Amino acid sequence: MTTTVRTRVAIIGAGPAGLMLSHLLAQSGIESVVIDQRTRDEIESTIRAGILEQGTVELLDTIGPASRARTVGHRHDGIELRFEGEGHRIDFADSVGRAVWLYPQHEVLKDLIAARLAAGQDLRFGVTADGVDDGDRPRVLARDADGVPVEIEADFVVGSDGSRSVARAAVAGARNGSFREYPFAWFGILCEAPPSSEELIYSNSPDGFALVSQRSATVQRMYFQCDPDTDTAAFSEEQLWDELQKRVPGTTLRQGPIFQRDVLRFRSFVANELRRGRVALVGDAAHTVPPTGAKGMNLAIADVRLLAAALRAFLLEGDERLLDAYPDTASRRIWKAQHFSWWMTSMLHVAPDATAFDRRRQLGELRSVVESEHGRAYLAEAYCGWPLDA
Amino acid sequence: MTTTVRTRVAIIGAGPAGLMLSHLLAQSGIESVVIDQRTRDEIESTIRAGILEQGTVELLDTIGPASRARTVGHRHDGIELRFEGEGHRIDFADSVGRAVWLYPQHEVLKDLIAARLAAGQDLRFGVTADGVDDGDRPRVLARDADGVPVEIEADFVVGSDGSRSVARAAVAGARNGSFREYPFAWFGILCEAPPSSEELIYSNSPDGFALVSQRSATVQRMYFQCDPDTDTAAFSEEQLWDELQKRVPGTTLRQGPIFQRDVLRFRSFVANELRRGRVALVGDAAHTVPPTGAKGMNLAIADVRLLAAALRAFLLEGDERLLDAYPDTASRRIWKAQHFSWWMTSMLHVAPDATAFDRRRQLGELRSVVESEHGRAYLAEAYCGWPLDA
Repeated sequence: MTTTVRTRVAIIGAGPAGLMLSHLLAQSGIESVVIDQRTRDEIESTIRAGILEQGTVELLDTIGPASRARTVGHRHDGIELRFEGEGHRIDFADSVGRAVWLYPQHEVLKDLIAARLAAGQDLRFGVTADGVDDGDRPRVLARDADGVPVEIEADFVVGSDGSRSVARAAVAGARNGSFREYPFAWFGILCEAPPSSEELIYSNSPDGFALVSQRSATVQRMYFQCDPDTDTAAFSEEQLWDELQKRVPGTTLRQGPIFQRDVLRFRSFVANELRRGRVALVGDAAHTVPPTGAKGMNLAIADVRLLAAALRAFLLEGDERLLDAYPDTASRRIWKAQHFSWWMTSMLHVAPDATAFDRRRQLGELRSVVESEHGRAYLAEAYCGWPLDA
Repeated sequence: MTTTVRTRVAIIGAGPAGLMLSHLLAQSGIESVVIDQRTRDEIESTIRAGILEQGTVELLDTIGPASRARTVGHRHDGIELRFEGEGHRIDFADSVGRAVWLYPQHEVLKDLIAARLAAGQDLRFGVTADGVDDGDRPRVLARDADGVPVEIEADFVVGSDGSRSVARAAVAGARNGSFREYPFAWFGILCEAPPSSEELIYSNSPDGFALVSQRSATVQRMYFQCDPDTDTAAFSEEQLWDELQKRVPGTTLRQGPIFQRDVLRFRSFVANELRRGRVALVGDAAHTVPPTGAKGMNLAIADVRLLAAALRAFLLEGDERLLDAYPDTASRRIWKAQHFSWWMTSMLHVAPDATAFDRRRQLGELRSVVESEHGRAYLAEAYCGWPLDA
């Protein structure tokens, strides 16, 4: 027995991209069905980082008070770049009159899920997509938590199903894209401690990169550059603090019990195709960036905004031009974000094979940026997000 | 028989750095002797490129009407970056209110030599330095064109003797510094033709980089990216025009007889030490940059301005603080310029081992720069030169 569902847009993946897309489509009266293989609890309880561009926060504002980005999240008007033992503030407000919000992704997801369910969205958890059949009437082939096949027939299918996307095969073929790997990773910790700094510190040190980030008034998130094959159990708590502290000279880190540790590998990826016929990709299904610069979720939201406008024109007016333009239009921002993520990564980390020249040049680059109002504004503009309408 | 000369500052090398230093010292009443192994005619007739930062032109102004940078040279208020077949102007005037001057280095040298000789400078051509003896009363050991030994005893010795510096051994040891080599070179031509463009075109194309530069109303200088081992005789004139033209899509190059061709290899280098005791290095003796971004001569002039102030304080007031600070102060600009030269080079050239990701990221970077007023200003500021007083 197969459950068959008919809708206008089938959305695979209830991440920020899929949920936001269903909201934007609903605003235009376009019905959609969102499925996700995870349970609601899994989605809401997987702790993830989140730095929201101003444009992302403004788009979240459109779901109404359900968005707590401005109330529970914290606006940050700058970051610090630290190198050669000195801190240099990049003042977003002063440089570009914009800001970012520190608001974890799982909180964004709670807000979006609550808002969508309250609005009557057809949102199905525990439904796993196995494949997409393209064509004039594309179908998502899936199964529910009990193994019962579910077939969603739609006018359009969107793959917002993350880096292990099932939809990608129907658009770009398996693993069909541009890759880049990095010879380092981040060792991340969560600890019970007050913040060590009011703003984030991106620190370049001879021992490698560290990021002093925050989660709340009592829980902090910090990272330090490590070998991708590092075993999380290889360090005592004391050793972890030593590793972190020596990469952030000049600030005494406030310590506390470390209750989570993980190694984040770095990868850059962009799928060669973002749309084929009546199937399109958004977010991590279409691209992955290394975490330096915090572009992942923001880029997903930017994709969705473009695709929502394109689907509106296509489904309501039969005008396919924006849909035809979607891959090129989205790619322009995607490759700027890929560059920014690569740039922040390569400017701040110490590559294992860096020569003395590379190292001095990198410090020359950091100095060029922080000593120039134009350099600071160039970085701030990208960090806070290019205009969504551009 | 040995000719012995006594002076306050012995300057090895009559390039832009050495000649400008003798001028600045003379302004403070400090006597110097400048030697160069080449004849005056060799120095003045070796055709070299030249893009002068605004600060360089302003410093040349201090030699009076002998400087023809503003009269014979041409002010350029922008450059064009071309990629994906489209040109994007970086407007210097608009971005940073500054400019550069296209004025070949051998013309700068003619001006400086004429001005120094008119001022009575002890300037000796055809005198080859063999080494420097350091100490409280350092000496330059040299010989004249007839092989007669010449010994210059001074309070201070400055090595402005280029990338094959003899003075460097006394300061930094032989070949003691940070290197970087590049997997490409420039194939340069001089041709009899009118300019193909009012301003310089820096073109990134799938076939590699090209620079459409100028020399005069009737002679043009152009370059295209090539393998460092390219044989200049391997191309017919027609093939050279084909190679250039395919790298500058969108502009029809104005052709004419090619009367000079050469291959310029790329190298980055900075000596580990810029001063030891009473010997210091400036210009190419201290550092080499790849030609993209045109920083070589300008950086030499910036070194000299710092060193002249330091020597003034030391020799006239016995105050050694600026001299002690010289290596650090000069290094800050040197490494910013090294970064800028590396950046322009890596953003515009196609590396032989570039992956699809690298190539797309590079285009994303070019787009990030040209689409942002801050990106354009960041580039323009460096191209026109950071303030000399910073």
